[in-house]
Order: sequence, then structure tokens, then C-alpha cells
Amino acid sequence: MRSKLFVPCSRPEFFAKALAGAADALSFDLEDSVPAEAKAAARERLTEWLRSDAAAASAKRLIVRINAPDSLFFADDLTALAGLRVDLVNVPKVESADAVRAIAARMEEAGIPAGLLINIETASGLAQAGAIAAAHPRVTGLQAGLNDLFASLGIDRRDARHVHAALWSIRLAAGEAARFAYDGAWPDLEDTEGLRAEAALARSLGFVGKSCIHPSQVEIANRLFDRGEDMARARRLLAAAAEAGARGHGAFLFEGAMADAPAIAAARAMLRRAGEAA
Amino acid sequence: MRSKLFVPCSRPEFFAKALAGAADALSFDLEDSVPAEAKAAARERLTEWLRSDAAAASAKRLIVRINAPDSLFFADDLTALAGLRVDLVNVPKVESADAVRAIAARMEEAGIPAGLLINIETASGLAQAGAIAAAHPRVTGLQAGLNDLFASLGIDRRDARHVHAALWSIRLAAGEAARFAYDGAWPDLEDTEGLRAEAALARSLGFVGKSCIHPSQVEIANRLFDRGEDMARARRLLAAAAEAGARGHGAFLFEGAMADAPAIAAARAMLRRAGEAA
Amino acid sequence: MRSKLFVPCSRPEFFAKALAGAADALSFDLEDSVPAEAKAAARERLTEWLRSDAAAASAKRLIVRINAPDSLFFADDLTALAGLRVDLVNVPKVESADAVRAIAARMEEAGIPAGLLINIETASGLAQAGAIAAAHPRVTGLQAGLNDLFASLGIDRRDARHVHAALWSIRLAAGEAARFAYDGAWPDLEDTEGLRAEAALARSLGFVGKSCIHPSQVEIANRLFDRGEDMARARRLLAAAAEAGARGHGAFLFEGAMADAPAIAAARAMLRRAGEAA
Repeated sequence: MRSKLFVPCSRPEFFAKALAGAADALSFDLEDSVPAEAKAAARERLTEWLRSDAAAASAKRLIVRINAPDSLFFADDLTALAGLRVDLVNVPKVESADAVRAIAARMEEAGIPAGLLINIETASGLAQAGAIAAAHPRVTGLQAGLNDLFASLGIDRRDARHVHAALWSIRLAAGEAARFAYDGAWPDLEDTEGLRAEAALARSLGFVGKSCIHPSQVEIANRLFDRGEDMARARRLLAAAAEAGARGHGAFLFEGAMADAPAIAAARAMLRRAGEAA
Repeated sequence: MRSKLFVPCSRPEFFAKALAGAADALSFDLEDSVPAEAKAAARERLTEWLRSDAAAASAKRLIVRINAPDSLFFADDLTALAGLRVDLVNVPKVESADAVRAIAARMEEAGIPAGLLINIETASGLAQAGAIAAAHPRVTGLQAGLNDLFASLGIDRRDARHVHAALWSIRLAAGEAARFAYDGAWPDLEDTEGLRAEAALARSLGFVGKSCIHPSQVEIANRLFDRGEDMARARRLLAAAAEAGARGHGAFLFEGAMADAPAIAAARAMLRRAGEAA
Repeated sequence: MRSKLFVPCSRPEFFAKALAGAADALSFDLEDSVPAEAKAAARERLTEWLRSDAAAASAKRLIVRINAPDSLFFADDLTALAGLRVDLVNVPKVESADAVRAIAARMEEAGIPAGLLINIETASGLAQAGAIAAAHPRVTGLQAGLNDLFASLGIDRRDARHVHAALWSIRLAAGEAARFAYDGAWPDLEDTEGLRAEAALARSLGFVGKSCIHPSQVEIANRLFDRGEDMARARRLLAAAAEAGARGHGAFLFEGAMADAPAIAAARAMLRRAGEAA
């Protein structure tokens, strides 16, 4: 899920094009891009499409961003997803582990088997991010919501130092609970350098992919979050570890640096996540 | 409160000049700048001045930094402020929410209606900053005390990376409880570039202003923490949001970047804080 | 303890050379550098050497890194150290205050008087680092384990921003409990610039020294963590403070910057730690 393309549910004319595009996942939005008076109609367009053969046949991951738990639309959004193909429900403005457990209970009742992708996008949510990630087995990942987080606090979204601090906290919180961390959207469509820099930063922090708000951003995300080279390196490291082990050494020199048990464990984990026996 | 000028209470000859200066607030110090044997006399000079017509008439915010809760001087400092014009009591070395509640209870007893500005200036205080900010409705803000924090830990005060990490934590902690964050003092009077850089960093993190230890620092703080341009931008964004809303869109392109509900909420909040209907 | 040299217990031929070298401390490793099938023999080599006259006579601090509490080797590692000269037991993969208390209780039973140096090298350990440092009086310090931490999370070990964020958290956590913070190893033997930069960063964050995985790294660590100049500056500051105090001032200008009570306290603390009356 290197890239995840944002699709406003109020714009059903974009659905087919998004499906035909290069994004690994589609994130259908019922929240901020849809004005209050258009929520019901947007929800209708979405559920109609999710019932289609095109949706059933898609190899992409299908994600729905519903409205926040304390909004008027939350209950209807969730109920509407029952019985449909949805891989992940993306929930905005979550601020506590209790909120996560309440959402998961609601999904249980409604018979929705999807995982949860939780947005961290308020100061309180960030402070509780570790507990939020660990709150329920349904939580598969945390997603950075820097636009909301920074706007609410008056923090400059363009300053990479601030972005780093927020992403670091989110990555560590997800890591505590062995969940993945997912990067949010870069808001400036014309500034591809900014997008690239932010994606590279997230990648170097171990995030798995980046949200895109326009198809033009997808290719950049796909390239930056590609793991092909890392996997080749992991295979070389395991081969070197096997040789060193045969000579009775737990630590060994690998491509210029010392490597030992944690490096071996990390290489194995990466290949295993990608479905390779290791 | 873009700037807040430090005034040692042991130097009453500075009071009139400070009052006539450009600082938005004056912070009368009873703590570190006053040696133990001079505390009583300094407190006397301060209370005398706070009873003056000049103090009553001043448009500046008047702040008093008292001695730490666990010091010999705390109780007398607080009692002395009863019945006087003090807008904020600034408390150093606070390390827990319990300490805040104890201070607030003391102020209640003494009949002091001022708000609390809490210094975060120890490792324990920083770890508890979120709980400290939320501990009591009297707390109006957190103030960074980097000189104390860094000196106690042997951390280099000149390294902007360290300053960033501390300010980030303090801003987020204040934000959790919807309190403001205020920047501490830059200690090197000759290094105006250092002052400017630190103020710009704090500003970009959403701090509202900076402590100054000399009148020469005030103008720099006033300029860097001025919000005029931001407010003009907020007004333009709300106009664009109204237009987009009329066309049925919740998200819209604004000055080159996508804007949606959180950006609108932030713009409204900024104007509201400044007293504009929005 | 500016430098601490890593010595694999599976390589007893290195012991004498390490003892004769310039490192302030030796850290005998029973963990990652020793394969499972060689653990018992390595433990034997270590205890034999710790009983030697050379060990008894050494002015270096002697540290043993044992296997993690949840490993098969932990109990035997600890029992083997009873009655031997060991200054610090270094424990990897600690993730909670409870784990620290369990280890300390085990050492009590086994009659091992050594202090504990706790590795912070998982996301959970980092989140709990403050509680871990404060968990028991035996804990003398926290040590950064960035290789494990970053490998487990897919974080790029070469990016100084990430290193900064991790070291900052560990330094602050140690500081909450008034413990020292110790820097981990730089894995790339050929990249002395990288080593130097990381050591300088740790030093500027108040870490006391750096782990070395090869004798060639020791001299760099010894130079970068030397405190001679700082101590001379502390003596000058205390002299200036005495003069200012005699003139009735608690705050004073010192070498271009304002200094007051916290700076004086920090200077005194530094000299006291080094055994000077101050």
C-alpha cells in the first residue's frame, strides 16, 4: 500500500478513473471533502459503487474515511458499510483508546469485518497514540493527519522539522503495538519537491506509504515507498549471516558495517511481511 | 502578548522605564534574579508599585514570577499579591498536576483571581506537561524554561535541534489542554541573530510570544510574533471557503494548496481569538 | 566512562588487549555477538577471566551485557556473576519498570551488588524509559540501543534527525530520574566522520560517553566526551557568581550571556560529580 488515493464521495465521476489508476489503495472520503448537506447523497453514491462488480474485482485495497465519532454522521456512515467490500475503515479525530474500543464494538454489532486505520490529527490524539494503536486487534495502522494537527495548533505545515517530530511520534506509537504507520497527504499540488521530500522523510522513518490527494502524486509515492532494493539487501544479509553462523560468529561485517542478531531479525521480518519464506 | 519583559524586583529603578517601553507584558521577577537575602525587600518594592496609579492605568499585562512551590519564599510571595492588580502569576519549577492544583487552591484561599502561567523547566515537568496544562482552569499557558531545563541536564542551549525538541513537546502539551504556549528567554544579549532564530522557531510552532530579558530584545519579539499577515490570510481563506461552499464543495484550492474543513476551522479560531466575528 | 569497549565473550583472545587499551570501561558481551550454541562456553570464559588478578587490579569499569530477561540464557547469565567483580550489569530489551524490578530482585537473591545499565532499544522500551529509569535504585543509567530500535521499526539508522529524536527521549527519561544517559555503538567502522558526528550529538545532549565496538573508536569517544573544558568554565562561572553575589545580584553577565541560579546550580553539580568541592 505504497500509495492511497483520496476520492471524494461527492464526486462519483472520479471513481472509475481512480480505479483505473496506479494507486495501491483508494480512500473514499465521506468527511472533510463533503459538505454537511451532501453527506447522505455521497454515502449513497459510495455504497452503490462498493456493490458493483468493478469494486468486487479490484485488486486495490478499498478504504472508507467516515466522519468523526462525535459527528452527526458517524453512526449512519458505519451502518451503511455493512455487507459491503471494505478493507479498512479510516476514522478521523480519534483521541483515546476508549474511542477506538467503542468504534470496534459498533463495527462488531454492524457485522463489518474491516480493519481500522486510525488518524492521529489532534494534540490529544498524538499524546495517546501508543494507547490508541494498542487499543484493539482491529487497529491495523495509524495514519498521520498533519494538516489538521498543525492547523489546529498554529504550527507551520511547511517546516520539515515539525513534520519530523510529528511523524516520529506516530511511528514510535504504531511500533509499540506492532502496527504500521501511514503518511498523510501533502496539500500543495504544485510543489512536487515538497511532496517528494516529505515522502522520503516518512519512508526513512519506516512508514509504509503516503496518502495522495491527486493522481499526479501517486507515481511519486509508488516510487519512494517501493521496497525492492531493501528486500534484495535483506536477502544478501541473510546469506552473509548464514556464512558467519557456520563459522561460529553471531556478529559479522556486512557491506562495511557490523551486523548481528537485530539486523538478522529485521531482514527476516521484512521478507516475511512480503510473503517470502525467510 | 507578543513580548514579555523581565523586570528584576530587586531593581525598582527599572520599573518606570519598563512600563514606558514597547513590551506587551511585564514580568516582575522575585525568583532567580533576586538573592535570598534580598527577597523580602524586593517583594516590598513590587507590591508598592503594583498599588500605584501607574500600574492600575497600564494597558500592559502584568505578570509576577514568584519563587518555586518548594522554596522558603513561595507562601509569602503569594500572600503578598492578594488585592493587587496581577494578571498572571508565573510559577517556576512545576513538576506535576498535583502541584498546580495545590497552587490554585492557595490562590483561591488568598483571594487572588489571576491566571497561572506555568514554567516547564525540568525533565519531570516536561514529562508531565500535558497533565500540568490540563490540571486546573486557572492555567492559561505553559512557558518554556530552556535555560534551567538544559543546564540541569547538561544539554547544549545553543543547539537549535535541542531547542526544537523541547519547544515541540511544550507546544503539544499546551495544545492538548487548549492552553497557549509561551517562549522563554534567549540568554545572550549580544547575539540578536540567535534571538531572532529562536523566536522564529517558536512562532512557527504556534507559540504566542517570547520572554525578553532586556528592552533591546522587545522589538524583535514584537515583530516576529505579529499576527497581522496571518489574519489577513485567514480572512481571504474564509471568503474562498464561502465561494466553494456555494458551489457545493467542502474542499477547494486556496493560494496553491488544497484547503478544507480543518483549515476553515483554524482560520475562524484565529480571528475569534483576536476578537473578530468569523 | 567516556568510552566503553565492546568485548565478545566468545573471543577470549581479545580480553587482554581490551584491558590494555584506552577505554574507560569494558563491556563483555554474552548477548548478540554470541550464537546460542556458544553461550555456555562464552559465559565460562568470562567468569574465569573475571576471577583473574588482571580483572581485580583493573582501574576500568567492568560491565557485562547479559541476555534479555525473556531469553533462555538470562537466569544462567545472572547466576554466573555472583561473587565476581562486575561494576554494572547491562540488560538488553527491557520494556517496563516491572521488568527492572524483577531483575533487581533476582540480583538481590543471587547476591550481586552491581548497578544496572538498562538498554532502551525497542519502541515500548522508549515509551516507558522514564518509568524504567525510576524503577529501582540499582538503575544507574539508560543506554541507547539505536541499532535494534531502528532495525525493528524500519527506521534509517544513518539519518541524524532520527538519531536526535531517539537520543533526546532517552536523555530526558534518564534526567527525570537523575540517572545518566549513555550512547550506544556506531556500527560502521570505516565511517569515522559518522562516529564523530553521532558522538558530538550525544555529548551536546548531555550523554556521558559512547559505546565502542572496535578499539579504533575509543580515542574518538575519549576526546569527544572529555569534560576538562566544561569544568574549567564551571570554575570561572562560580567565581563570577561569587563576585556578583557580593554586589547583591543573583543574575549576572558571564562571558557574553546572562547567568543566574540555574547556571550556578549546574556548574556546582558538574564539579561535584567529578569529586571537586564546589
